[in-house]
Amino acid sequence: MSISRATLEALDRDDRLAAFRDEFDLPPGVIYLDGNSLGALPKATRGRLARAVDQEWGRGLIRSWNDAGWIDLPQRLGAQISGLIGAQEDEVVVADSTSVNIFKLAAAAVRMRPGRRVILSEPGNFPTDLYMIQGLSDLLGGAVELRTVERDRIAEALGPDVALLLLTQVHYKTGALHDMAALTARAHAAGALTLWDLSHSAGALDVDLNGAGADFAIGCGYKYLNGGPGAPAFLFVARRHQDQAVQPLSGWMGHAAPFDFVDSYRPAAGIRRHLCGTPSILGMTALAEGVSILTRAAMQDIRAKSQRMGDIFITLVEQMCDQAGFALISPRDAGQRGSHVSLSHPDGYAIMQALIARGVIGDFRAPDALRFGFTPLYLGYADLWDAVSHLAAIMATGEYRQDRFQIRAAVT
Amino acid sequence: MSISRATLEALDRDDRLAAFRDEFDLPPGVIYLDGNSLGALPKATRGRLARAVDQEWGRGLIRSWNDAGWIDLPQRLGAQISGLIGAQEDEVVVADSTSVNIFKLAAAAVRMRPGRRVILSEPGNFPTDLYMIQGLSDLLGGAVELRTVERDRIAEALGPDVALLLLTQVHYKTGALHDMAALTARAHAAGALTLWDLSHSAGALDVDLNGAGADFAIGCGYKYLNGGPGAPAFLFVARRHQDQAVQPLSGWMGHAAPFDFVDSYRPAAGIRRHLCGTPSILGMTALAEGVSILTRAAMQDIRAKSQRMGDIFITLVEQMCDQAGFALISPRDAGQRGSHVSLSHPDGYAIMQALIARGVIGDFRAPDALRFGFTPLYLGYADLWDAVSHLAAIMATGEYRQDRFQIRAAVT
Repeated sequence: MSISRATLEALDRDDRLAAFRDEFDLPPGVIYLDGNSLGALPKATRGRLARAVDQEWGRGLIRSWNDAGWIDLPQRLGAQISGLIGAQEDEVVVADSTSVNIFKLAAAAVRMRPGRRVILSEPGNFPTDLYMIQGLSDLLGGAVELRTVERDRIAEALGPDVALLLLTQVHYKTGALHDMAALTARAHAAGALTLWDLSHSAGALDVDLNGAGADFAIGCGYKYLNGGPGAPAFLFVARRHQDQAVQPLSGWMGHAAPFDFVDSYRPAAGIRRHLCGTPSILGMTALAEGVSILTRAAMQDIRAKSQRMGDIFITLVEQMCDQAGFALISPRDAGQRGSHVSLSHPDGYAIMQALIARGVIGDFRAPDALRFGFTPLYLGYADLWDAVSHLAAIMATGEYRQDRFQIRAAVT
Repeated sequence: MSISRATLEALDRDDRLAAFRDEFDLPPGVIYLDGNSLGALPKATRGRLARAVDQEWGRGLIRSWNDAGWIDLPQRLGAQISGLIGAQEDEVVVADSTSVNIFKLAAAAVRMRPGRRVILSEPGNFPTDLYMIQGLSDLLGGAVELRTVERDRIAEALGPDVALLLLTQVHYKTGALHDMAALTARAHAAGALTLWDLSHSAGALDVDLNGAGADFAIGCGYKYLNGGPGAPAFLFVARRHQDQAVQPLSGWMGHAAPFDFVDSYRPAAGIRRHLCGTPSILGMTALAEGVSILTRAAMQDIRAKSQRMGDIFITLVEQMCDQAGFALISPRDAGQRGSHVSLSHPDGYAIMQALIARGVIGDFRAPDALRFGFTPLYLGYADLWDAVSHLAAIMATGEYRQDRFQIRAAVT
């Protein structure tokens, strides 16, 4: 049964999340399907950041570490994020980048499983996850080994040599969703710990870390949390592990008493020991605005709309681009999918450039994936109709074959 | 011979750097002597950051990685900083925090000196420098050892087991200056490498890394570079080491081809391999404005004014607070000093609080140090007179003994 634009307009009229659209500043004429890579600008961020610059930094100067509460911001913002991912307030802190946080928590986890040297992951996981473990392994001269197995073989690969299972809950390319609870239980049964990368899930689906019994997690601030380009990341350590988890990037902000200025490191109690250097105040200030919007939305509504949008998008592509040569990379079943849908096409790069030139912004992932992200807070159902109409026009006219769409940019 | 305010006013009239004062936004009624901890707000930063938020993020969205040049910003900003520290443009990159960068470069250096396990530093070095090496040492199970010796014994401690000498050029507490060229030469003669922490020197003195033959360096963005609270840090790797230096925080931004999304890490050529995760765009944007001001000033003028200010400050304290019980912690000789002067006093904490209440902002470092930083770009000579006059009044009246000045804040 085919979908009409009128059907989608009706869905928009009934959308409980529709009012959130007005909290974001999106360029006119753009349909933004890349919030899974860089979230849109919340209108409130502009003023909040200006206040942080003018008042907190400019007027308060060094006094703002106390007076504006900068010193506690990593924990306060972590507590805000905790509600989005099924964690307790004291289990999350904002710090560094996702890459750096992977290193911290993987190293902490391996120490907690002496005699086990394998960190298990899957090939094709987001590269930085694999690269950080390779760096740790190289540094430790083989005391840690990265092993990757295809996702359908992960459960059986959880042997007695595995210290840690490191997976991205929603695959960055395909959008395929791991069963966090089942894999965590399987890992625990094998004596291993889990580290979940929530980069493509925090703010997009109803993550339930404690419900799943997860041990560690990290996540990204600049995707669905709308924290701005290069926003700080967050990390989660289950309360039951907080005394044992000691991470190696033992900077002064993670010290039990940083302002005693003693020579010997002593980790702070609780989650604060996972801080390292002086945190990015401007970055966290922007991130706090993005997170604040999400805390006012029901994550179940976001997830439901996101799944529905993915289903509609796939149906519309089938309906309008039937003979265009696209294959669906993502799972057809919305329950198996995160909040983006990827299509493969041999001319994927050029097609995406042509789409972007028409104001429909998704992204491309080598070698042939076109990625379309659905962000229920600022995207409407009718936008999907318009986006796929552009795609259909590009394929029908062959305009993507123009030379200008063939040149690869630095970031693709 | 005693100094008068009129003498200082005359110095201000002749000051070649005086015009820079107008490029900073400082609160009225404040004399800011803590630019060594958090630099002041450049007026241009407000507009530049607003443009990055509104135009680059809000309008450009994901396209700004290419169109606004975000992807190269770590290197472009590094190249700008290189001119302030005696480095080549391709030897510096902006990334992460000073703490994280210490870990990267210390680990890289130790790998380059197999058979040597000692990282030599001094007790009382800035804590995070020591803590990061302790973290590396713990992680490596003793394959790396942190050894600290008093500064007058460093040269003789450079034995055949030392892989790396890690020192902060200007001591955070005392302001004492190491002879970078002499110690680097001594380290090299002993077969060791050097890692210089420039946190209190970049932007404050005429650092000459290549003139000194330095191997590695790191530095801070939020002090004399005026990059804002928690600004990103920078790091330096001498060109001759760039092929051999492999750092363990091997995130995707340091990969030779990050957008190929392959599973195996391969370090980028040159300085870019020292990037880790997605860089903080907002933080770097603010930092670029602070650095831009410095590139228009002559570092020799900054250094000359800074030394003169330190000398005048010390003389004024002697002149106006003779019986107040202060002792000079910093070297008396300006050639041995960075850009701040520290005094000790048993009631140091309360005295500093009383000063801050009068609008004279320095800081306190446990157990008894009052620290006063001199930032020639936005501080005048007559400000020193006014600051020390307040200090003298506080000591004469004993107002620092009020209860309200005794309560320690979170950050001191």
